[in-house]
Amino acid sequence: MALLLHLTDIDENRWADGFRKAVPDYPVVLRSDDYAPEDVEYVFAWKPADDAFEGLVNLKAIFSLGAGVDALLQHPALPDVPIVRFVDDELTHCMSDYVISQVTMHQRLFTRYAEHQKAKVWSQLYPPASHEISVGIMGMGVLGKDAARKLKAIGFDVKGWSRTAKDIDGVTVFAGSDQFDAFLAQTDILVCLLPLTPETTGILNMETFKKLRRKLVGGPVLINAARGKHQKENDIVAALGDGTLSAASLDVFEVEPLPRTSPLWDIETCFITPHIAAISNERSGVNYFSRMLLDHRDGKPLRNVVDRDRGY
Amino acid sequence: MALLLHLTDIDENRWADGFRKAVPDYPVVLRSDDYAPEDVEYVFAWKPADDAFEGLVNLKAIFSLGAGVDALLQHPALPDVPIVRFVDDELTHCMSDYVISQVTMHQRLFTRYAEHQKAKVWSQLYPPASHEISVGIMGMGVLGKDAARKLKAIGFDVKGWSRTAKDIDGVTVFAGSDQFDAFLAQTDILVCLLPLTPETTGILNMETFKKLRRKLVGGPVLINAARGKHQKENDIVAALGDGTLSAASLDVFEVEPLPRTSPLWDIETCFITPHIAAISNERSGVNYFSRMLLDHRDGKPLRNVVDRDRGY
Ligand SMILES: NC(=O)c1ccc[n+]([C@@H]2O[C@H](COP(=O)([O-])OP(=O)(O)OC[C@H]3O[C@@H](n4cnc5c(N)ncnc54)[C@H](OP(=O)(O)O)[C@@H]3O)[C@@H](O)[C@H]2O)c1
Ligand SMILES: NC(=O)c1ccc[n+]([C@@H]2O[C@H](COP(=O)([O-])OP(=O)(O)OC[C@H]3O[C@@H](n4cnc5c(N)ncnc54)[C@H](OP(=O)(O)O)[C@@H]3O)[C@@H](O)[C@H]2O)c1
Repeated sequence: MALLLHLTDIDENRWADGFRKAVPDYPVVLRSDDYAPEDVEYVFAWKPADDAFEGLVNLKAIFSLGAGVDALLQHPALPDVPIVRFVDDELTHCMSDYVISQVTMHQRLFTRYAEHQKAKVWSQLYPPASHEISVGIMGMGVLGKDAARKLKAIGFDVKGWSRTAKDIDGVTVFAGSDQFDAFLAQTDILVCLLPLTPETTGILNMETFKKLRRKLVGGPVLINAARGKHQKENDIVAALGDGTLSAASLDVFEVEPLPRTSPLWDIETCFITPHIAAISNERSGVNYFSRMLLDHRDGKPLRNVVDRDRGY
Repeated sequence: MALLLHLTDIDENRWADGFRKAVPDYPVVLRSDDYAPEDVEYVFAWKPADDAFEGLVNLKAIFSLGAGVDALLQHPALPDVPIVRFVDDELTHCMSDYVISQVTMHQRLFTRYAEHQKAKVWSQLYPPASHEISVGIMGMGVLGKDAARKLKAIGFDVKGWSRTAKDIDGVTVFAGSDQFDAFLAQTDILVCLLPLTPETTGILNMETFKKLRRKLVGGPVLINAARGKHQKENDIVAALGDGTLSAASLDVFEVEPLPRTSPLWDIETCFITPHIAAISNERSGVNYFSRMLLDHRDGKPLRNVVDRDRGY
């Protein structure tokens, strides 16, 4: 028996120390250690190499450090065992912080006032109240639900969109591609918190933007904190240029780091952050996966298992 | 009997129409109308002229359009009748919108990322979670309490400061000048929602800023949406210059409109809005004061009466 850590671009030793303290009776090994592949029951993975799972004949589950498993599902030799994704209260909390900051900034017409300040213009344009503005959240999973609840608590009119129907207090949730247009027609500020799947790839495109409601002064706003491949960056540039969108906040990009040649950097109504909306916390990661491992050894079912057919 | 409207710089006719519909049995007059001063029982005032109250020998109360009565209390011939200030749910709602947008923008290190974007730099500095940041609200009245409740709901650690002690769920409230320093020592983002009185004039000064906690990356932040005379703008310029403050959001100024010569306009860490944090809404103003008038005629006590000794 053993837990193998396979984390690329991340300090594996700190995680290993954490796990060794949390599950002292269970061997924790790194790739550089001397271990027998057939002993490995669990792999804790981040960007695993192509040969990551070779020889792991007794593997019981893969633990994914990422909340999104789109990259992992593309692995060329993914074993047919359950994949447990990381669901982290702290990550969820930070994501809602990001979403609220961007939503309220745009609701309060930030770009307009920034322009006026530059020109030293005193012009009393009153922003709309939050209850006059509808925030439409794509993806009503762990992240979408928390953001929805908090945006509602501070006064926004909140709509949601997911694959399956949901009953959430005070939030109208639209379901499936049939109701996508109706959802967009009631949305002033569009927030993407979807997983990346074949269905959601490129969903943030000009056609989508054109269907948004135009109630907010200047036009609708896009906020993407999910995955860069949800968005067509050429379309975002065009939409910010022709007024289809009045502003955008992007934390993720088709290619990361965002290349210096991208026109997005120079657009004053586009607010760029370097994929820092929310990060997986080491302490809670160790807690979460060590509890999962111990429970599973005790015969309890795994939780937050990825559905490979759905893709998330 | 009559209600006299005396509103400077505001469309009096729209308000008069509103009141005439709301209290059809009670005469509503403008200064330009033909009326007997001794008939006037109530004056609805905004920036009243020096002779505004002359001859109003039967005045029962002054209704103040402003939520703040600091200017009105300076009137050179203010009659000794109760002053009712406007308490408006919609105004309160908009003020909290403003406060949340500015607090979250600074918590998420907006100025840092704006700088990086200009330089096309991709650098993953993670902002703190909202629960790691303490927002200290000066003034825990109608506005301060609503902002506190909402900031708490989205996860911030919230402290308050008022003249008298208060018991507010989940919020430590410091009281009086004795506890001011202790309050500042636990505050990363300082929000001013005080009324302007002799005690609070100039309270946002270098000495105050130096006492703030320095936990937020870059240093503490000031947000003032109350009155310009709470702040010493020279001190704000100096504090933003020497790092005592990392950023500021100002909606109000010592002189309004803010003169084009003010150095504040050019400071990239200072976010200026032209006194638009929250506005008194006409519809709710008519509702509120017509209800007050009818209740008072029915013998009920006035509500939200200003205490002239306290100054608010
Ligand atoms: N930028 C960052 O720092 C960062 C950090 C963490 C996560 N993320 C991204 O955020 C994503 C969402 O995370 P989560 O934990 O909230 O995921 P989740 O709990 O699995 O929720 C996913 C939601 O999306 C909906 N959905 C999936 N496919 C859909 C489709 N084709 N049409 C409509 N709705 C669809 C799901 O609908 P049902 O409810 O009907 O299943 C569900 O509501 C992750 O996959 C990850 O890529 C980004
Ligand atoms: N920028 C804008 O658009 C805008 C719009 C509306 C209002 N305002 C300003 O906001 C102010 C506050 O409004 P509000 O309705 O919340 O007023 P409020 O209900 O009267 O509350 C005032 C609060 O300030 C506290 N306070 C007063 N003097 C103090 C002192 N010397 N030391 C410590 N605390 C003190 C009071 O303490 P106690 O609770 O102990 O009495 C109370 O908690 C108004 O006066 C107005 O100037 C600005």
